[in-house]
Amino acid sequence: MPLDPDLAVSTPQKDHHDSWDADRVLLYHLGLGAGANPVHSGELGYVNERVLKVLPTFSVIPGFEAVRPAMQGPGLDYHLSTMLHGEQELVVHNPLPPEADIVTTPAVEAVYDKGKAALLVLRADTRTIDGTELCTNRFSLFIRGEGGFGGDPGPQPAPWEVNGEPDLRVEVPTLPQQAAIYRLSGDRNPLHIDPKFAARAGFDRPILHGLCTYGIVCKAVVDHLLDGDPTAVRGWSGRFAGSVYPGETLVVSAWKSGSDRILVRVDVKERDVTALSHGVLRFR
Amino acid sequence: MPLDPDLAVSTPQKDHHDSWDADRVLLYHLGLGAGANPVHSGELGYVNERVLKVLPTFSVIPGFEAVRPAMQGPGLDYHLSTMLHGEQELVVHNPLPPEADIVTTPAVEAVYDKGKAALLVLRADTRTIDGTELCTNRFSLFIRGEGGFGGDPGPQPAPWEVNGEPDLRVEVPTLPQQAAIYRLSGDRNPLHIDPKFAARAGFDRPILHGLCTYGIVCKAVVDHLLDGDPTAVRGWSGRFAGSVYPGETLVVSAWKSGSDRILVRVDVKERDVTALSHGVLRFR
Repeated sequence: MPLDPDLAVSTPQKDHHDSWDADRVLLYHLGLGAGANPVHSGELGYVNERVLKVLPTFSVIPGFEAVRPAMQGPGLDYHLSTMLHGEQELVVHNPLPPEADIVTTPAVEAVYDKGKAALLVLRADTRTIDGTELCTNRFSLFIRGEGGFGGDPGPQPAPWEVNGEPDLRVEVPTLPQQAAIYRLSGDRNPLHIDPKFAARAGFDRPILHGLCTYGIVCKAVVDHLLDGDPTAVRGWSGRFAGSVYPGETLVVSAWKSGSDRILVRVDVKERDVTALSHGVLRFR
Repeated sequence: MPLDPDLAVSTPQKDHHDSWDADRVLLYHLGLGAGANPVHSGELGYVNERVLKVLPTFSVIPGFEAVRPAMQGPGLDYHLSTMLHGEQELVVHNPLPPEADIVTTPAVEAVYDKGKAALLVLRADTRTIDGTELCTNRFSLFIRGEGGFGGDPGPQPAPWEVNGEPDLRVEVPTLPQQAAIYRLSGDRNPLHIDPKFAARAGFDRPILHGLCTYGIVCKAVVDHLLDGDPTAVRGWSGRFAGSVYPGETLVVSAWKSGSDRILVRVDVKERDVTALSHGVLRFR
């Protein structure tokens, strides 16, 4: 079997040193389509370094760099074209500064057996070089065709149910070149740019990065329900329920739940597909 | 007088060492809106590093970096908000490689007296570190309110006339965030992102970089008349006749002239404005 869960989880991972500056943040925001509506109050803060605010989901960029070696490390021998991003979770400890020198500790947290697929859970804990805890990112990846090895199926998902009309329903168009811009921030998986590779993975054409959708939706909730203030976000998690093709329009529906949670679902306007389900954004 | 043409022209300029890699080229192409139509034959070459082709206009990016110190050097004391890009000229000596270590020799070629404005002509000769001549870029900048000093008005423009129906007429939409993406390639003039600065310069809102339009149009001509082959371009020059607001659609009209020239004019679809006139693209 090309997957060896015990070996994967027990293999020590190296701390990853990294840094970012305003330009790297701007590029990330532009990869989410920021700046399309400069008239919107606060939009300028995403695209102008002089008044920069940082979406907390930017942390997935250095987080992904940190877990990348672990993703196909010892015990994890599979072809990249069988991998699909399943879920993502962010816990914010402190707001992200516009520039930082950081250290991220990566880990293979678990390899679950989901029957048809294995579910690889990678964790990235990021702090500044001075020791201020910034955030924890958890990447859950399906490795298709690698389940059924008699392993732990993992915890049951927390209940998630929405009722009634959403408090927010907003359409967010994506660009045909959205993935081409987003990938410059680091994730060069050819699934998002190469038609032949996409076909091999079973798609009509290259799909948008799940993490691009994830960032777009966080931004939409911040802009429309949190007064455009990204530092209000405490956490953001969701399940990538279906693929999005660049150029499609995301329909973001959000329901307030209690005093500090927003439940989120994202549908694709052009097709009968839910792109993101089980979305939970926690705020202060 | 804040401009001293003799001092400006006689001040020695330092060679500028620089380099580029595929990522810098990709970012430039995306700043021009590349990748919007991945179905178009050859479009992938602009946005995927594995099959990268390089627009010759990319050379304005390192060229601008090289002439930047000269732009406001000795003898050239003016406020940036009075400056407008007037004309641009590129002479290609050899096709641009996807990555390169280069040296650019900058020069203040002339400061002409155009009456109401001064016309500052900056020249950048770029070669590889190994000595292969790549290109010459010439930036002509109007400094509004600084003319009338009794200086040389400069050469008369070459005759330029188009007749009859164009051989190509194509609409190229720009993104509302086009300038926000383009500026990441280097030109951070706040005129292109900051509404307050733009107002001070006399514009309703931030305008698109002239060099962004210049690159977009070169790409359109290459794609539609030169079989998508950027190495066919020998030269490309034009006059920035009017401003473009990000989000507007460029109407590119092109007339073949002889066996190796294409005359180009660019109008703004939404307004009765010519954005670029006197365009001449030479090809092999």
